[in-house]
Amino acid sequence: MSKLQGGFTLPGEAGYEDLTLKLAKKWGADVIRDSDGTVLSDDILNAGYDIYSTICIIRDHNAWAKENKDKLQQTFLITSPVTAKENTLSIDLLKDFFKEQFSLNDKEAAFKYWQVYDRTLGKEVDKSLWKYEKATGTVEILKATPFHNYTVSFLAYRIWEEISMYNHTTNHWDKEHLMQIDPRYKETREYLLDWMENWCKEHPATNVVRFTSMFYNFAWIWGSSVRNPHLFSDWASYDFTVSDIALDEFSKKYGYSLTAEDFVNGGKFHVTHMPGNKKKADWMEFTNDFVITFGKKLIDIVHKYGKKAYVFYDDSWVGTEPYNDRFEEFGFDGLIKCVFSGYEVRLCAGAKVDTHEIRLHPYLFPVGLGGLPTFMEGGNPTLDAKKYWIHIRRALLREKIDRIGLGGYLHLVEGFPDFVDYIEKISDEFRVINSLHDAGKPYTIPCKVAVLTYWGHLRSWTLSGHFHETYMHDLIHINEALSGLPVEVEYINFEDVKAGKLKDVKLLINAGRAGSAWSGGDSWKDPEVLSTITKWVNDGGVFLGVNEPSAALGMDRFFTMAHVLGVDKDLGDRVCHGHFANLLSKEDWVSTEYDGKAKKHLYIVDEETKVLSEKDGKALITTHPFGKGRGIYMGGFEVNFITMRMLLDLILEIAGDKEKLYITDNKNCESAFYPGSNTLIVINNSESKQVTKVNTKAGVKEYTIEPYDTVIDKL
Amino acid sequence: MSKLQGGFTLPGEAGYEDLTLKLAKKWGADVIRDSDGTVLSDDILNAGYDIYSTICIIRDHNAWAKENKDKLQQTFLITSPVTAKENTLSIDLLKDFFKEQFSLNDKEAAFKYWQVYDRTLGKEVDKSLWKYEKATGTVEILKATPFHNYTVSFLAYRIWEEISMYNHTTNHWDKEHLMQIDPRYKETREYLLDWMENWCKEHPATNVVRFTSMFYNFAWIWGSSVRNPHLFSDWASYDFTVSDIALDEFSKKYGYSLTAEDFVNGGKFHVTHMPGNKKKADWMEFTNDFVITFGKKLIDIVHKYGKKAYVFYDDSWVGTEPYNDRFEEFGFDGLIKCVFSGYEVRLCAGAKVDTHEIRLHPYLFPVGLGGLPTFMEGGNPTLDAKKYWIHIRRALLREKIDRIGLGGYLHLVEGFPDFVDYIEKISDEFRVINSLHDAGKPYTIPCKVAVLTYWGHLRSWTLSGHFHETYMHDLIHINEALSGLPVEVEYINFEDVKAGKLKDVKLLINAGRAGSAWSGGDSWKDPEVLSTITKWVNDGGVFLGVNEPSAALGMDRFFTMAHVLGVDKDLGDRVCHGHFANLLSKEDWVSTEYDGKAKKHLYIVDEETKVLSEKDGKALITTHPFGKGRGIYMGGFEVNFITMRMLLDLILEIAGDKEKLYITDNKNCESAFYPGSNTLIVINNSESKQVTKVNTKAGVKEYTIEPYDTVIDKL
Repeated sequence: MSKLQGGFTLPGEAGYEDLTLKLAKKWGADVIRDSDGTVLSDDILNAGYDIYSTICIIRDHNAWAKENKDKLQQTFLITSPVTAKENTLSIDLLKDFFKEQFSLNDKEAAFKYWQVYDRTLGKEVDKSLWKYEKATGTVEILKATPFHNYTVSFLAYRIWEEISMYNHTTNHWDKEHLMQIDPRYKETREYLLDWMENWCKEHPATNVVRFTSMFYNFAWIWGSSVRNPHLFSDWASYDFTVSDIALDEFSKKYGYSLTAEDFVNGGKFHVTHMPGNKKKADWMEFTNDFVITFGKKLIDIVHKYGKKAYVFYDDSWVGTEPYNDRFEEFGFDGLIKCVFSGYEVRLCAGAKVDTHEIRLHPYLFPVGLGGLPTFMEGGNPTLDAKKYWIHIRRALLREKIDRIGLGGYLHLVEGFPDFVDYIEKISDEFRVINSLHDAGKPYTIPCKVAVLTYWGHLRSWTLSGHFHETYMHDLIHINEALSGLPVEVEYINFEDVKAGKLKDVKLLINAGRAGSAWSGGDSWKDPEVLSTITKWVNDGGVFLGVNEPSAALGMDRFFTMAHVLGVDKDLGDRVCHGHFANLLSKEDWVSTEYDGKAKKHLYIVDEETKVLSEKDGKALITTHPFGKGRGIYMGGFEVNFITMRMLLDLILEIAGDKEKLYITDNKNCESAFYPGSNTLIVINNSESKQVTKVNTKAGVKEYTIEPYDTVIDKL
Repeated sequence: MSKLQGGFTLPGEAGYEDLTLKLAKKWGADVIRDSDGTVLSDDILNAGYDIYSTICIIRDHNAWAKENKDKLQQTFLITSPVTAKENTLSIDLLKDFFKEQFSLNDKEAAFKYWQVYDRTLGKEVDKSLWKYEKATGTVEILKATPFHNYTVSFLAYRIWEEISMYNHTTNHWDKEHLMQIDPRYKETREYLLDWMENWCKEHPATNVVRFTSMFYNFAWIWGSSVRNPHLFSDWASYDFTVSDIALDEFSKKYGYSLTAEDFVNGGKFHVTHMPGNKKKADWMEFTNDFVITFGKKLIDIVHKYGKKAYVFYDDSWVGTEPYNDRFEEFGFDGLIKCVFSGYEVRLCAGAKVDTHEIRLHPYLFPVGLGGLPTFMEGGNPTLDAKKYWIHIRRALLREKIDRIGLGGYLHLVEGFPDFVDYIEKISDEFRVINSLHDAGKPYTIPCKVAVLTYWGHLRSWTLSGHFHETYMHDLIHINEALSGLPVEVEYINFEDVKAGKLKDVKLLINAGRAGSAWSGGDSWKDPEVLSTITKWVNDGGVFLGVNEPSAALGMDRFFTMAHVLGVDKDLGDRVCHGHFANLLSKEDWVSTEYDGKAKKHLYIVDEETKVLSEKDGKALITTHPFGKGRGIYMGGFEVNFITMRMLLDLILEIAGDKEKLYITDNKNCESAFYPGSNTLIVINNSESKQVTKVNTKAGVKEYTIEPYDTVIDKL
C-alpha cells in the first residue's frame, strides 16, 4: 500500500524554517506546533500546515498578577510537629518550606481557616490559646502542655508557579518567576475571558489552541532543606485548588465547612494512593464543577473564533479528569497525553473526545527527565525512542490513537540523523496501525478483565502520574502489562461491584498494599461487597489478588477474601498458629522463569491451597479452588516480558482458549489481529532478532522479526 | 582452692546403680532425681544423696480420670470459617482437629457457651437460628446468608494430656493415653489432696517433691491435617484453663460473663505476643488466684511431711507465673527451669524463691528437640553442651543460680566419655561462679536499662517459651544479649512509665512489630505515656527503638515517638512525601561489621537525624538528638557477638564510662568482676582460642583463653 501521511504534530522552530519544513515532510506531519516559550515565524505559519498554539491559561499573566497578588493561587501548609518543652511554644510557620514558593495568607478571610493542633492529644487547640505574630511569621502557643507535639496549619499563597520553578531551578533559568492566578475570583475570570478573546483575535493562523491544561497544578510542595527538597508531590491531588474564597463558597454550597485538617490530615495530606472520603469527594466534585463551568467559557471563545480546543493532560490538569463523567461538558476537541508507557496510551485512547494524540518521548531537550543526556554528547535518542516505542506500540495495537507528536526544540535533532530516520519509521508504523483500527476493533480473547480499586473508573489505567513516579505500586505494573494484551479491561470500584458490574467479568484483579486506594482499604469491610464477589467466584470467576489484596483491619482475617484466596497475612496475632505447609502444583501459565518476591508473613489458610511458584521455601504464587472459580494470589507483580506473558496465559486459560488464535508463541513478541481487514500485526519487543509462530484461522504462520521491529501480514 | 562439691542434681537410673553413683561422685552431685516415668531403686535411694521425686499432679490419675470424664480439662475451639452457599449451612465441629485430643462438651452447662458467628458481618448469630446435631457432631445454621462466612466456637474436653500426646506421637510410644483432670471440681480437689497425702506417706526417701508444674498446660491445639499438624501453640496462653465451671464461677466473682469469642477471638485467640485487654487480665487474675489457692494446699501437705516443694517451670505452668506478684504465696522452696539460653537463666535467677536450679541441655535422650541425634550415632553431645553452656554461662556471671542438673536416661552417656568429662568441667565451673556470688553482686556499669513492653515485669526476660520458638521477635534477641551484660535490667509496662519508674533509667528499649505486646500497641496512644517518655529523653534519657517501636495507628505519625527517634515508617499514606536523604555519621559503638536488615518503608523525619549504619543506601541504624538525650533506631536486632558487643558499647557510652573497667577488648570474650572477692572471671564464648585485655583497677590484664573456656583471676 502507498505510504500514509498525516496524524503527526511537529514542533516548529523559528530560525530553523528549512529544517522544520524538511522534517515535516519526512515525518509526514500535518500540524506544526509551537513549544513552550517559543513563537513560530511567518514562513512556518504560512507553509500550509495546521497550527497548534500552546497556552497555559493561568501562568502567563505576570503583569496582572503583580497588581493582584491577593488573587494568586493558594494551598494549605502544615508545619512539622514541634515539641513543647515549656508552657509556651513558638512555631516558625515557613521554616520547613522553600521561601520562594510560599507567602503566608494572613488576611482575615484566610486566617479563620488556620488551625493549631496538639498532636499528642490529636485535638485542635482552641483559637483563644494561641496567637499569630505577623512580624516574625510565627504562631505562639500560650498554654502549651509540656512535651506534647504541636503543628500549625495555615493558608499560603503560592508565589512561584511550580513548573516555572522547576524549570528555573533544574535548568538554571534566569527568567522572571511566573505566578499563577486563581480564576476563583470574579476579577480573574473577567480578565481571562478578555485575554482569551484577544488572544484568539491576535492568532488568526492558529487552528488548535492547546491548553496546558486548565487552572490548577498537581500538588508540589518544596522544602527548605537540601536533604529534603520536595516535601510533597501528588500528581492527582486537589490540594492546590484550595483558597479562602473557595472554602467559603464550598461551605455555602454544601452546607458544611471544611477545615485545614481536612486537607493536611496531620501532615499526611490525602494522597491519591489512599482511599478518599466523603469530604474529599465533595471537594473534588465542587472543584470539577468550577473548572468545567469556567473552562467551558474559555473553550467557547476558542470555538467562536473557528479554532479547536485541545487539552494537554499534564501539569495544571486538576479538575479536568478525563474519566470524570462530566469531562465531555468542556467541549474539548482533542486530548493530548505525553506518554512513556503503554497504560498512558490506553488512558488517552479511552477518553471521550474526538481526537486522541500522544506526545512521544524523548522530548527534544538536551537532557532527559532522569537528568541523563539525550540530544547532546553521550546521548542515544534513537535507542531511547525505541525503548519508549516498544511500550507504547503494544498499547497502540489495542485501541486507536489518532495522532502522535513530538515536543521541544527541533534543531537539536540535527546531529542525530539516525533519530530522524527512526522517527520517520515509527511515524509510518503508527499510521499503519492507526489505519488498521479504521476497519473495526482488533480481536480480543473472550475474557473480560476488571480491576477493582477505591477509585474505579475515575482512575482508569493510571494511578497518579508516570510510571517512574509510581513504580512502587503493583497496580501500575499490572496496568502496564494489561495495556498491550488482547483483552477488554474495565476499572471498577466497590459501588460498581454491588451494582452488578461483575456480570460479564471473568478475571477480577485487586492489587496493592493494605489500606491503599488500589487494594481498597475499608471498602472490604462491606458485607455486600464480600458476599457479591464471593458468589461471583463461586459461579466461576477468578479473583487474582496481588500483594495485600482485600486487606482490612478489624475482621477475623486480614485478607477479607482469604476464604477465596486460600492465603492471608499474619499481622503478628497469628504468630502462635500453625500454617499449612507448601504443597507444590504446576500450571501452564506460571513460567518456570518467574522470579517474584515472597510476601512477608504470608500464610496458607486452607488444605486446598496449592503453591504454583515458590522461592527459598516461600510461596510466590498460590491457587485455591472455590466453587466453579478460584482465587489466585501473587506476592507482587513486576512488569516484564515474563509476567506480561503469564498474565496473558492466565487469561487464555480462564477463557478456555486452547487454540490461542493470534497469539505469538514467543514471549518477546506480541500480535494483534484486525478482522475488518484480515490483517495480523506481529511486534518484536526485544532488542534481539526473534522468530515466532502465530496460529491463525489461515493456519500457523511463522515470522522472523528484527529487533524492536514490526511485521504486518494480510492473511 | 579445693574443688567445690554439690549444687548438682543427677538423674538416677534403676538398673544402672553403679553408673549412677560413679557419676554422682564425678560430677559432685548432692541430689539424685528420678525422671519422668522412671523409679529409683533402693540402692540409689539409700546411697546418702538427697532425693528429688517428680510428680505431674494432674496427669498420673488415669483410673480416676476414666471414672470422671466430666472432670477432664477443657478448651474453647473454633472451626475454620465456612462459606454458606445456600440458606442453610452445616459445619462439622471437629473436622479441623486431631480427633484423639478433643471430644465435644455438649453438656447443658457447657452448651450455653457455644457461639455461632457470621464473620462477614462480624456478629454473633442468634441461638434460635442454629441447632446442634449430636449424632453428626455438626451445627446446622438454619437461616444463613448465602456467601457469608460462619464459624462455630464450642467447649471441648481435652482427652489426651498434651505432653503425653507429644511423646507418644514423636517418639512412637505405645502406652496408655494420659488424661488431665481439672481441679476446678471439688471432687478433683478432694481426690488430689488425698492422693498427695498418700504419696508423701509412700515416699519417705524423697526430700524434694518436684511439681511439673501445677495444673494447666500451655495451649497446644493439634490439627487433623498432615500439612498443618499444630494449629495453635502459645507457651504463655491461659486458653487451657477454661471450662464451663470456671466460666460460671468467673461470672459470679467478676459480675460479668466471658463468652467463647473472648477466648477464640475470631480464630486468632489472644496470643501472648499481642497486647491483652481487661477481660484477659481478669481471667488471668481469676486463674492465678485459683492455682495459687489450691496449689498452696498441696504444697502445705508436702511441707507437713518434712519435704521441700520445688516447681519445674514448664509444661503445666499456667497460673504459676514466677513474676506474678503473688508467686511467693505458693510457698515453693525452689524453682527449676530448663534452659537453652541466657535469658532463661536470668528468668530463673530473678524469681522470689529460696533455691534456683537450672536444667542443662542436652537432655539425656537419644534425639534432641530439633529431631537430630544427640546420644546416638551421629550425635556430638559434648559440642551441644558447649554451645548451650556459652549462652548460659554469661548469664550465670550476672546473677546467682544455686543449682544445676541434668535430665533423662543416665545410661545413654556411657558411650560418650568426653561428655562425662565435660559435664564434670562445667559443674566445677558452675560451682566456682556460684561461689563468687556469695561475696556480693558483681560489678555493673552505672547505666540502668529498662525494657518497655505491654506485659512489663510479669514477663521479665521471657516472651513466651524458648528462643527457638520466639526467634522471630527482636526482643528475645535483645533479652538474650542483655542476659550476659554487666548492667541492671528492669522490665516495665506503660503504667510503670506513668508511675515514675523511668527515674533512674538511662536506656529505655522498645522493640518489636507494630501492634505486638513487645512494641506495645495502643498503649502508645496514651498522651501521658508519650509526654513522660519525651520529657525523660529531653532530660537525658536514651530511647532505643527497634523494628516498629512506639507504633500505633490513628496518630499523625505511625511511630508515636518519631519526634524523638527522628524516623518513622510510611504506611502508604506518605508515599507522595519527600523524605530526608541519609546523612552518614560515625559512632564508636556501631561496629563496622554490623550487618542488619533495613526496615521497609522507613523514612527520616527530621534534619537532625543521622545514619550510623546503612546497607544498599538504606538506613540500618539512626540517631536523633532530643534535648539532653536522644533517640536511636535499629531496623531489627539479631543476637550475635557483634550486636551483643554493640549493645554493651552503647551502654558504656551512655554511662560515660571511658575507662571500660572489667570489660574485655575482644568481642568474643566477656568478663565479670566480683568486688567482694576481688575476683575477675573472663570467658571465651567462641570456638577458637582468644587473647583479650581487661582494664582493672590493678592495671590492664591480658588473658589467653582456650575455646569455650573460662579464666578466673584473683586480682
